[in-house]
Amino acid sequence: MGTMKALVFVGPGKIRLEEKPIPKVGPTDALVRITTTTICGTDIHILKGEYPVKPGLTIGHEPIGVIEELGSAVESVYEKGQRVVVGAITPCGQCFTCLDDRKSQCQGVAAGGWRFGNTIDGSQAEYLLVPYATANLQHIPEGVSDEQVLMCPDIMSTGFAGAENANVKIGDSVVVFAQGPIGLCATAGAKLKGATLIIAVDGIKERLVIAKKMGADITINYNHVDPVEEIMRLTKGQGVDVAIEALGTQGTFESCMRVLKPGGTLSSLGVYSGKLSIPADSFAAGLGDHKIITSLCPGGKERMRRLLNVVRSGRVDLQHLVTHEYKLDQIEEAYDLFMSQRDGVLKIAIKP
Amino acid sequence: MGTMKALVFVGPGKIRLEEKPIPKVGPTDALVRITTTTICGTDIHILKGEYPVKPGLTIGHEPIGVIEELGSAVESVYEKGQRVVVGAITPCGQCFTCLDDRKSQCQGVAAGGWRFGNTIDGSQAEYLLVPYATANLQHIPEGVSDEQVLMCPDIMSTGFAGAENANVKIGDSVVVFAQGPIGLCATAGAKLKGATLIIAVDGIKERLVIAKKMGADITINYNHVDPVEEIMRLTKGQGVDVAIEALGTQGTFESCMRVLKPGGTLSSLGVYSGKLSIPADSFAAGLGDHKIITSLCPGGKERMRRLLNVVRSGRVDLQHLVTHEYKLDQIEEAYDLFMSQRDGVLKIAIKP
Amino acid sequence: MGTMKALVFVGPGKIRLEEKPIPKVGPTDALVRITTTTICGTDIHILKGEYPVKPGLTIGHEPIGVIEELGSAVESVYEKGQRVVVGAITPCGQCFTCLDDRKSQCQGVAAGGWRFGNTIDGSQAEYLLVPYATANLQHIPEGVSDEQVLMCPDIMSTGFAGAENANVKIGDSVVVFAQGPIGLCATAGAKLKGATLIIAVDGIKERLVIAKKMGADITINYNHVDPVEEIMRLTKGQGVDVAIEALGTQGTFESCMRVLKPGGTLSSLGVYSGKLSIPADSFAAGLGDHKIITSLCPGGKERMRRLLNVVRSGRVDLQHLVTHEYKLDQIEEAYDLFMSQRDGVLKIAIKP
Amino acid sequence: MGTMKALVFVGPGKIRLEEKPIPKVGPTDALVRITTTTICGTDIHILKGEYPVKPGLTIGHEPIGVIEELGSAVESVYEKGQRVVVGAITPCGQCFTCLDDRKSQCQGVAAGGWRFGNTIDGSQAEYLLVPYATANLQHIPEGVSDEQVLMCPDIMSTGFAGAENANVKIGDSVVVFAQGPIGLCATAGAKLKGATLIIAVDGIKERLVIAKKMGADITINYNHVDPVEEIMRLTKGQGVDVAIEALGTQGTFESCMRVLKPGGTLSSLGVYSGKLSIPADSFAAGLGDHKIITSLCPGGKERMRRLLNVVRSGRVDLQHLVTHEYKLDQIEEAYDLFMSQRDGVLKIAIKP
Repeated sequence: MGTMKALVFVGPGKIRLEEKPIPKVGPTDALVRITTTTICGTDIHILKGEYPVKPGLTIGHEPIGVIEELGSAVESVYEKGQRVVVGAITPCGQCFTCLDDRKSQCQGVAAGGWRFGNTIDGSQAEYLLVPYATANLQHIPEGVSDEQVLMCPDIMSTGFAGAENANVKIGDSVVVFAQGPIGLCATAGAKLKGATLIIAVDGIKERLVIAKKMGADITINYNHVDPVEEIMRLTKGQGVDVAIEALGTQGTFESCMRVLKPGGTLSSLGVYSGKLSIPADSFAAGLGDHKIITSLCPGGKERMRRLLNVVRSGRVDLQHLVTHEYKLDQIEEAYDLFMSQRDGVLKIAIKP
Repeated sequence: MGTMKALVFVGPGKIRLEEKPIPKVGPTDALVRITTTTICGTDIHILKGEYPVKPGLTIGHEPIGVIEELGSAVESVYEKGQRVVVGAITPCGQCFTCLDDRKSQCQGVAAGGWRFGNTIDGSQAEYLLVPYATANLQHIPEGVSDEQVLMCPDIMSTGFAGAENANVKIGDSVVVFAQGPIGLCATAGAKLKGATLIIAVDGIKERLVIAKKMGADITINYNHVDPVEEIMRLTKGQGVDVAIEALGTQGTFESCMRVLKPGGTLSSLGVYSGKLSIPADSFAAGLGDHKIITSLCPGGKERMRRLLNVVRSGRVDLQHLVTHEYKLDQIEEAYDLFMSQRDGVLKIAIKP
Repeated sequence: MGTMKALVFVGPGKIRLEEKPIPKVGPTDALVRITTTTICGTDIHILKGEYPVKPGLTIGHEPIGVIEELGSAVESVYEKGQRVVVGAITPCGQCFTCLDDRKSQCQGVAAGGWRFGNTIDGSQAEYLLVPYATANLQHIPEGVSDEQVLMCPDIMSTGFAGAENANVKIGDSVVVFAQGPIGLCATAGAKLKGATLIIAVDGIKERLVIAKKMGADITINYNHVDPVEEIMRLTKGQGVDVAIEALGTQGTFESCMRVLKPGGTLSSLGVYSGKLSIPADSFAAGLGDHKIITSLCPGGKERMRRLLNVVRSGRVDLQHLVTHEYKLDQIEEAYDLFMSQRDGVLKIAIKP
Repeated sequence: MGTMKALVFVGPGKIRLEEKPIPKVGPTDALVRITTTTICGTDIHILKGEYPVKPGLTIGHEPIGVIEELGSAVESVYEKGQRVVVGAITPCGQCFTCLDDRKSQCQGVAAGGWRFGNTIDGSQAEYLLVPYATANLQHIPEGVSDEQVLMCPDIMSTGFAGAENANVKIGDSVVVFAQGPIGLCATAGAKLKGATLIIAVDGIKERLVIAKKMGADITINYNHVDPVEEIMRLTKGQGVDVAIEALGTQGTFESCMRVLKPGGTLSSLGVYSGKLSIPADSFAAGLGDHKIITSLCPGGKERMRRLLNVVRSGRVDLQHLVTHEYKLDQIEEAYDLFMSQRDGVLKIAIKP
């Protein structure tokens, strides 16, 4: 086996492109040659040391590529050379937890289905070893570009889940706090599920413009208006049916609680650090029939198939979330851009 | 109209039995002569001033009695002299929120369906005015005693809801933190729903004995064992499918989070004051697909009918939760006993 | 009280515009002066004697109008002169069945919530008495025309329910058999809920053109292609996730079964007469985890509020379903046109 | 490899114990030495030629045994010599359909998850090859006998699913038509889920006696009473919330429809042949918000784990359903007894 380039986590604040051996394929694995991948907000948490991973780990969890090699148990299911997209979360499908339909928590471990760039080497590399390949490789049909499906592995799957798991219904009002890539997809997901009043909140004007394209009926720039007050005004003091948190801070979480209708659902997508507080007043002292649900990105090939259906049907166009493109060789520059939120950057296509 | 005795909230720390006019019946009301009522933990919160109500309000929300008078719009539905049980929560059934099946949050107001002893005069009195009577009076069939149904208005409805709203499934493991009357009913509810491992936690030995009768497979006295450690040991490190909080403190809430399986549900029944914190570690940083749901006691006559079904079928016997009986004239003594948790007191029947 | 014009069912095959007394308002009623109403396929069943109603009954169940008078128990909720839309189904909100959230089956009677033009006088008249008015009058905001909301009482509520009750999910494939007004709304509902492959089947070319506007990705004219074969081809032999029946015949019902994926849902909206057969082969001998669900039009003011949200948000535009307009005086001509399906007729606005 | 005894389907009306080679183990398989198995009503359908399988196939789908050999991909999950129970349905866990949580319809094929004694050799043999072993072997803990878990693979899983998929709620009324082994388990399942009125219907007195033990509140012998009339009388003309069909005939299916409450659920477990008719009158012409759902036995090791939880918790005792025991050598006699329904036979333990 030869070697490949891979972006590894060295230690808090430090990542580096290194040479690593191309991984060996076990019976239930597949080796995928990466053609496009991208950088996620979670990678930034990792880089900063806020979410701990083992030094030396290749990071990244959003793989698009071509099947290079197949394990013996997977050969009858796929063919070498097929273009595939793989979810950020790779459930095994066969453990007690997966069979109980809690697949993102594979093996009963918290976030256990999230392996790439977390517990095993990830996708910001020339090659990626995909475990449980039968459950996780989704063929990309002809005529669909890498860029069109680049949001499927994580951003789109997570964002949509924010609306799906909150059980958004026809005629619902929904607010989405933060309009980064995941929040934008939550906005799109709320629209896809039939919400009729979608309010998008952010502090960056360009993001609010895109939010409108993704389905927001109303946008709120928190630099100019107090979002809680404004949302209560827009809903005539009723609050919203569903509040989606797409950032991972105490402030946005608390704002979600404060605009929630009695009996409403707070759907949380953010990655938090430290304690999270629920103010008792916003919580009706526990008597408000509130639901707070958190969602980890759903994965597996069936999820990818459904998201591909969305892409191909044209219901949602996420290509314009891909604002920049870099070679893998320049990925450290790409990180710098992504962290700075300069130049209207949303998502960056990385090409090995 | 004559007058009647009623227990009123005078101010924080002070309640008093007073004479009040017997209420007048409007077109959609019913007047019920109370034959039995009881005292709830929430009444203690009110007495202490921890849950604010207007001075002069009659407290109590667990009415059993006899129809004394019916409003013009209710006459065709019931007859005077019928024995009835009324839920603690009295939804109108006809507002947007009730029609959206969020009936405890009637009129879109947080806990809006909870009127008795909260926003209107309650049941610790000789007579009670029931609003939206068509939706709220449930006939008690012959052969069923007041004591048998005394838990229906609140304790049983709330406790069962803890298991129902958590969607307890056949084969689930469930822990219930605190085995006061509501916790005991949550234990019974978990059994009724098919849980096969039910762990009950409390610090009072007598309550744990009753917990066993209500369906607990295992009891934990937190004075002798650390419940979080013990539950993790019992579940082989997996945690439980459902954790029910039945007290309303940071400690029990946090313990619930710490024993919850990834993808599990924390079902909260307690009434909280102040901030509630979710420790990030127990929360998998928001990536654990956790659900936190709060339930206010479901009310309305259909709910009472279903709970009566449970009583009559003999599936659950709650009579032994009624440990003491007092005349309405001695209700202040009854409060004293109830607050002290002396003499194995669980629930006290109050007889006007 | 004066008199009013009303279209009454005389006997099978015979309807007639007659003079009737304007109804008297009871305490929980409202009297609405009809400004626009319409004719439904169900009215045709009634006219033909296929669905039996009492001779002398005023038919019609799709009312838009102005509040003329309010019962004593409703006065505090609405004001005279308000423009309102009322659902075809008028649940009481307060019986055991409504409180059990099976509101269309009000009072536990099959289709018990359907009163207008079925068990009480209906809307094809100058005035309409609305029972349980508090639960059933929905204010129409300024700037929204009668024509814009004319589909809300029945067509839109029923059609959407076909998709909602089938629990259409993001990425699902859905077929809708028959593209009359209800089928067209089912098509729109499937799109609103996130289906990404929507196949519409009908035999009238013009209806298939409109189906495309309502969200169909693919249309099938059964005069040119065998729909079952074509749908199986389009889904690569898999079948669809959801098949919606919107006609009420053995043929369409059976076709729905034949294109259904194992584990899929047949959502039935049609009104059937005689026996309905499920062919065992299409049914996997009962081993296919199939679901067959029937939906009666959801009613009540909360439902109307949500449908108004859809109208106002512009998510779906149903105005072009209203193809013709007639005075109430000419309603018999309108029936003639509607039954003949001439001139591209879909729905006819009737103006008293 | 040596040979083993296996009961094969020869042709309609004919089965025979034959010698066959012991199967070879592929990478994802396990070989289980059968210690106990049993005969199912479905096997009788197969024997009679009513449900077609390939001549030469070993029949039976209820395996208890000991792991004899493990495929290379399964070795790290289990150990040779472990006692295991395997579901009648063996989902792969990794296809699109399994990942969509329609596991009994594995690979998108109707009843595709049912392999044993249907599409591959079954359990009425000395050895059984288990496909997708990682997803399907459930360890039997010490102290639990073969007889205690013999109902888990099919009877208990199917019967419980009848109640689970109908979403039986606390306080529901449920009727179960037919009290063979599956019907008895449906009765037990209804009780486990919180139904408070359970009516069991059969024509064999002994089965009705056992039905009482399994949780029935009332039993009806259809030889003495008309069940439809009696159920309507017992429910005061309301009908039941849930009607479970556990036989597979037009008569029982139709009776279920006729006793169903508007808005109720018919949960079908039977295997049907020929057409099934829904009488329009019982169906409210399609306007009754009825649900008809069919369930194939849920399988996979998580399902077996949950059923084992039920067994171990003592919630339900199914051992007395095992009325007889035969050696594998005498299995043809056992079939004869089972088909005749002589001697109070319910289930027969077969011991290789």
